[in-house]
Amino acid sequence: MWRNYLKEHQIQVEACLQTLVPAQAGPLSRIMESMRYSLFAGGKRLRPILLLAAADAVGAVGSRFLQSACALEMIHTYSLIHDDLPAMDDDDYRRGRLTNHKVFGDGMAILAGDGLLTLAFETLLSQTEVAPEILARVAREVAQAAGPAGMVGGQAIDLESEGQLPSPDVMKLMHRLKTGALFRASLRAGAMLGGGSEEDLRSLTDYAEHFGLAFQITDDILDVTGTEEALGKPIGSDEKNQKATYVSVYSLTEARRMAQAAVSDAVAALERFGDRAWVLRSLAEYLLTRDS
Amino acid sequence: MWRNYLKEHQIQVEACLQTLVPAQAGPLSRIMESMRYSLFAGGKRLRPILLLAAADAVGAVGSRFLQSACALEMIHTYSLIHDDLPAMDDDDYRRGRLTNHKVFGDGMAILAGDGLLTLAFETLLSQTEVAPEILARVAREVAQAAGPAGMVGGQAIDLESEGQLPSPDVMKLMHRLKTGALFRASLRAGAMLGGGSEEDLRSLTDYAEHFGLAFQITDDILDVTGTEEALGKPIGSDEKNQKATYVSVYSLTEARRMAQAAVSDAVAALERFGDRAWVLRSLAEYLLTRDS
Repeated sequence: MWRNYLKEHQIQVEACLQTLVPAQAGPLSRIMESMRYSLFAGGKRLRPILLLAAADAVGAVGSRFLQSACALEMIHTYSLIHDDLPAMDDDDYRRGRLTNHKVFGDGMAILAGDGLLTLAFETLLSQTEVAPEILARVAREVAQAAGPAGMVGGQAIDLESEGQLPSPDVMKLMHRLKTGALFRASLRAGAMLGGGSEEDLRSLTDYAEHFGLAFQITDDILDVTGTEEALGKPIGSDEKNQKATYVSVYSLTEARRMAQAAVSDAVAALERFGDRAWVLRSLAEYLLTRDS
Repeated sequence: MWRNYLKEHQIQVEACLQTLVPAQAGPLSRIMESMRYSLFAGGKRLRPILLLAAADAVGAVGSRFLQSACALEMIHTYSLIHDDLPAMDDDDYRRGRLTNHKVFGDGMAILAGDGLLTLAFETLLSQTEVAPEILARVAREVAQAAGPAGMVGGQAIDLESEGQLPSPDVMKLMHRLKTGALFRASLRAGAMLGGGSEEDLRSLTDYAEHFGLAFQITDDILDVTGTEEALGKPIGSDEKNQKATYVSVYSLTEARRMAQAAVSDAVAALERFGDRAWVLRSLAEYLLTRDS
């Protein structure tokens, strides 16, 4: 039944994104097309779902905050476009389709990323039905998570350490910044928008840390054990790019054990929310069985 | 005496930027170094000065809003870093120094731009002494100006039209988005932060439109008549890159006449502010004599 929740809310996010980033004629048609190409490429909308489910968990109706949820997806999409560039990971395929720069060229891909990042903040700050002090706090939280002390910083560490295996500590920091920070902001934003208490916020932050870790470990496992069909991209790319992963630093068996422990810890952090956190609970457990 | 104002406030902006973007040891040292390299490259701090002077004009003490002013400089700097990339204008020099990607590599330059853009929003939204509804409004205004309907859109039009001269209308739209939008946001943000009335806001918006136009025309003129020493970059790059400019679309004489008219219009828009707008008045007039 949580798959129904997922599908239903994915459709809502999709529809909202369509109104926020519409196709356009005229001189701006190409940049909008480039942004839309990557935004509507069949993503799982995980960050939006986390935000909505966190608002549910603190007792609000999550779908009131679809616009914030979409802003997070814009930031995630921008990061993928820039990550795929030849100057970064140099990937030709993503989700079974050519990457943005292979279709629109490197220059337009850089601008599409820049555009999505900026539009995300405009979107976050344009919700007239949310109190301005909440808006400002949520947008600040997201900016922090996406910036040099968060996602951009993690990507910079990743870029610096290619070809030279970093220490396990630096690898963990890199992942916490590169993917963990935006998960954390998604969950905390949902709690803030939904009017959660500081105690709610602490529990969801705790959940976020463990969720992010489990996500990263299972991501590294999939790069070894997954199939190209399910992933929509070549497997074994981490090894090819000499990246430090939980599988290469530890082992496949140990990585699986660590993922299971992280999921248990994530679920434990949800205790105070009872049934209202059922989606977040299912999402964490799903990480152990995902194939993409 | 306005040069004293300029120098004094440039020093304040410089000091504030130093605290907002400090050098850092550890795994994030390189990305911070890359951001700082371009941020402290001797820019004129024109957008921060416009914000501070606009707050002065509506009767506030501009220097209370240094943090917002610095955020605008971060956004301007990010746009220069990305514009200089090989995938865009492919420039090796800026302000007499190697461009960011020539020193740090394309990947780190992209990230430095991403980092500055994101940090700008964090900075805007972290001013505890400003009311949250003003903060949210100012940040939304800046996001709009920097995004696909503003600066990013202008850059996209520029990228699309290289090698094929666009119509005068498309060229004007491109400049209004690429450079005009952020000037406009700087002035409007200053007015909002300073507690200006809607009438104040309208007059400063009017000033901004004319100021932006005069800036762009004189920029195009300098690319033909300027010296490499004063500009810190090769002259004639617009012609080399087959860019549509006010000089190529009209003529040098006509462009000079248009710049003069735009400055007169800008100054006229300041009438209601009287002496309090003396810096904005001097800034507009300076455009006609600038050599860089």
